[in-house]
Amino acid sequence: MTTLNTQCRLAARPIGLPKTTDWQIVREPLPEPGDGQIVVEVDYLSIDPAMRTWMNAGRSYVPPVQIGEVMRAFGVGHVIDSRDGGFAAGDVVSGPFGVQRYAVTSGAAVTSVDPALAPAPVHLGALGISGLTAYFGLLDIGKPAPGQTVLVSGAAGSVGSIVGQIARIKGARAIGIAGGEEKCRWLVEEVGFDAAIDYRTADLRAELKTHAPDGIDVFFDNVGGAALEAGLNRLARGARVVLCGAVSQYNAAPRGPANYMQLLVARATMTGFVIFDYAERYPEGVAQLAEWLRTGELRAQEDIVHGEVGDFPETLLELFNGRNLGKLILALKPH
Amino acid sequence: MTTLNTQCRLAARPIGLPKTTDWQIVREPLPEPGDGQIVVEVDYLSIDPAMRTWMNAGRSYVPPVQIGEVMRAFGVGHVIDSRDGGFAAGDVVSGPFGVQRYAVTSGAAVTSVDPALAPAPVHLGALGISGLTAYFGLLDIGKPAPGQTVLVSGAAGSVGSIVGQIARIKGARAIGIAGGEEKCRWLVEEVGFDAAIDYRTADLRAELKTHAPDGIDVFFDNVGGAALEAGLNRLARGARVVLCGAVSQYNAAPRGPANYMQLLVARATMTGFVIFDYAERYPEGVAQLAEWLRTGELRAQEDIVHGEVGDFPETLLELFNGRNLGKLILALKPH
Repeated sequence: MTTLNTQCRLAARPIGLPKTTDWQIVREPLPEPGDGQIVVEVDYLSIDPAMRTWMNAGRSYVPPVQIGEVMRAFGVGHVIDSRDGGFAAGDVVSGPFGVQRYAVTSGAAVTSVDPALAPAPVHLGALGISGLTAYFGLLDIGKPAPGQTVLVSGAAGSVGSIVGQIARIKGARAIGIAGGEEKCRWLVEEVGFDAAIDYRTADLRAELKTHAPDGIDVFFDNVGGAALEAGLNRLARGARVVLCGAVSQYNAAPRGPANYMQLLVARATMTGFVIFDYAERYPEGVAQLAEWLRTGELRAQEDIVHGEVGDFPETLLELFNGRNLGKLILALKPH
Repeated sequence: MTTLNTQCRLAARPIGLPKTTDWQIVREPLPEPGDGQIVVEVDYLSIDPAMRTWMNAGRSYVPPVQIGEVMRAFGVGHVIDSRDGGFAAGDVVSGPFGVQRYAVTSGAAVTSVDPALAPAPVHLGALGISGLTAYFGLLDIGKPAPGQTVLVSGAAGSVGSIVGQIARIKGARAIGIAGGEEKCRWLVEEVGFDAAIDYRTADLRAELKTHAPDGIDVFFDNVGGAALEAGLNRLARGARVVLCGAVSQYNAAPRGPANYMQLLVARATMTGFVIFDYAERYPEGVAQLAEWLRTGELRAQEDIVHGEVGDFPETLLELFNGRNLGKLILALKPH
């Protein structure tokens, strides 16, 4: 019996927020795996702001998804067929499976997941690319010292919420910027941030002055726009700005920080950072993050939407409407 | 007999280019020096783009010049009276004398100049703040390796023309951005840049692609605006952007680089830099720059306007109308 696969393919390059017509949902027979390939049934899809940038033509840190190609996505699933000696049916694995029900892929791009370490969705969040981005971006680029102040924008998101927690673990103060009172309360009361500022209602600059009287030593920016400008305006001497994302800019005509010369005033450094460069050190990061999860110092938060491959386009928009809290995941319903 | 001093004071904070009414020229008796003070007759005034930023209120890397205060300026002059054991009448000195004919100042802020090393104006240019800015900014922050490509904006200016030459001395390729065919020809034929791009007529991005096929490893930016964006678009992996100035932005509503996320694409670093932080290492820089001048590897270029203190406002505008080549200096006419 032929297995039918469902795929979400890029149909057009979006202008602004992706529309339904920018996608094509396709059902077609799954090809047989070749030598060295495995077949994975995808159980969870990681929904990331960076996805929006992968849909644009032009130079970026990864090649753009081509028109007609399956949308790029990380996922966790289980092996249902293997022609690679390193994997067997039933293995839980993570990898860049794409937005589809089944992936036929080389075993080389796939990582075994230890289900005993944490539930499968956590391997896409705190123990996945999000956690690793927070870990290496904050510690390798931001380098917070104990007692220093770390500002995180997009603080209630999958990366931001972990950045703040690692800052605390390392003895720094964590200030978050997020959208909405509920998210801010969650950040302070449940996640352990020292302060959280609601960018929708607060005077960002005034609040940063209150919460960072001696300036910001590390600014982990996921957002760009007004949040970036407010942070730059408050940098401490010798500050490090970690450029991780610019979610406020992905669907708009991008604008740069008008006060970028504050980098000169503060003798500060702004560094762009891509997690894929740290692939060789992922095991180190996962081991440390898992240990912090085990001791309870780190809290993982997933925001799981249950649906089908065809629900991907709508789920992606959750990242841009401000409702999402923690790691957004599309859980594909079991058959 | 009382000596009359002429001063140029800040009368109002300019909007855009400084107007005549933003200045006040004052003639008043020179006070007697106190203990530890010296009296300097100023012979040469350094005219710098940063002066425009010192006239603005608000947070910067130095306090703003106050309304009614003598305009801040570096100068070279000779001591005519000394109550400081370290100086004697006739000594040639440099220091932050301000835009005035005579400065009564503490000896502590003043440096002796060796007239045998180079003519007095050179001590404001290649052997002064401009040369030191190029030296420490390029070598300490930019860190070009032999064979790498260095891009300099404002390349025909006092700092930029030296940055390109030091890049060449260190075995790197130097590409300049400047305004006008004449400046570009001068940069290539006389100063030794490998290429120069006229931002007024060229397609900047296309020209950078031609002249930096493997990307830009070090970008020394004096200009901001379109030049900054064009350079960011062409960064090589791991590039260093040295933020030294933003002369295109000083008289306009500032705008940030819309493509600042190219720092992420290139895994690049943008660092703000203030020469005053290197004060303890000035002697090292002056010694090396003087040696390169002596061997002929470095060429100093001054653009000297002869006039009075009252000519300062008009001379300053030369920096922003694109006519100036090399170090702009106002030489005060001898009595």
